[in-house]
Amino acid sequence: MQVTVLQDIMSANDKIAAKNEEIFNRNKIMAINVMSSPGAGKTSLILETIKQLRDKVKMVVIEADIASTMDADRIIKEGVPAIQINTGGACHTDANMLGAALETMPLKDLDLLFLENVGNLVCPAEFRIGTQKSIMLLSVPEGDDKPYKYPLMFSTVDAVVISKMDYLPLSDFNLEQFEKTVKGMNPGAQVFRVSVRTGEGVADWIKWLGTQLKEIKCLVA
Amino acid sequence: MQVTVLQDIMSANDKIAAKNEEIFNRNKIMAINVMSSPGAGKTSLILETIKQLRDKVKMVVIEADIASTMDADRIIKEGVPAIQINTGGACHTDANMLGAALETMPLKDLDLLFLENVGNLVCPAEFRIGTQKSIMLLSVPEGDDKPYKYPLMFSTVDAVVISKMDYLPLSDFNLEQFEKTVKGMNPGAQVFRVSVRTGEGVADWIKWLGTQLKEIKCLVA
Repeated sequence: MQVTVLQDIMSANDKIAAKNEEIFNRNKIMAINVMSSPGAGKTSLILETIKQLRDKVKMVVIEADIASTMDADRIIKEGVPAIQINTGGACHTDANMLGAALETMPLKDLDLLFLENVGNLVCPAEFRIGTQKSIMLLSVPEGDDKPYKYPLMFSTVDAVVISKMDYLPLSDFNLEQFEKTVKGMNPGAQVFRVSVRTGEGVADWIKWLGTQLKEIKCLVA
Repeated sequence: MQVTVLQDIMSANDKIAAKNEEIFNRNKIMAINVMSSPGAGKTSLILETIKQLRDKVKMVVIEADIASTMDADRIIKEGVPAIQINTGGACHTDANMLGAALETMPLKDLDLLFLENVGNLVCPAEFRIGTQKSIMLLSVPEGDDKPYKYPLMFSTVDAVVISKMDYLPLSDFNLEQFEKTVKGMNPGAQVFRVSVRTGEGVADWIKWLGTQLKEIKCLVA
């Protein structure tokens, strides 16, 4: 009986996720679900991306947090529209939250949408929301053992950004071993080494984003 | 109807939590729920505590992770018994998981129990599990804005350990502002500044633990 109820919830979410994805494809918007632990640098990476691309690409950012509007405020200061979703305690964004945010947007004028998920390596990986791509950040100070502890997240994303590379001199993070582990769990995943502070690896990340944008623009609706 | 089901789930959990707490008090065990984001240094703090206290205090560690036994392996290497709970996808430990672990332990021989929760700043704060105290770590690289984003966690713990203080020279973390924010949300919370790597603040943490241990030993069962 309880299992049936749970199945209903999931399929309702997946139904809305499929509808969101259809909306993105029809409007040729590349939507990216950005996930990580708290404080791994999701907002900083998005802000850097805005600086690099704002003259060429029309962006919007949806910020999801349990509480507060701090991240949306930072995005708006950079001149890019941002919507804050407060999940009211939920540890992830679901398809319905994203769908509600989409209804407030001028979709025809957009190229790139970031959904910055709640800082969490568990729940956000469990919910399809309808973005065509999903990425995660793992910051160097978090340590290189995380793929073993959060296998669902690491095995389902399209790209892993190793963030805060500028902390590497103080850390025992083994980059080669980490990348090998990630590739073993998720052979198709791109791995980037990035420090927004020093600029390291930002160009590679921007190049990957450009490829995703080209793909979506060539999609036959 | 659905609300009724949810209430039943919560009260069943709380009932088991109360039973766990009664077991801890009866056996004069100080049980501490240790929470943080992934990679904030929970296991490292517990390992350092083991090194400092193992000659005087009988300890056990319960490690909760979505998957893997890496953390329990590290504890056992230090000669302290450890039990690994794999939550099977759940983003927190519930009272029943802790209760099941307790059944496997020689309770009369223990003084101090650490439950290292799943790395997550959201869900673990929502579940009573029956430990008498709960603490959280926030590592310097995560940033000082986290209390605004995860208010439940910061406002309910007994102590906040600012970990990885050795990363401070590379960070713009504002210690004074952060501590003021925490005290505003949670006036009774102790705040410690710790680096396991350099040893900074470890003595203060150990002293606080000693006070908790004395309290439980003086408890009339």
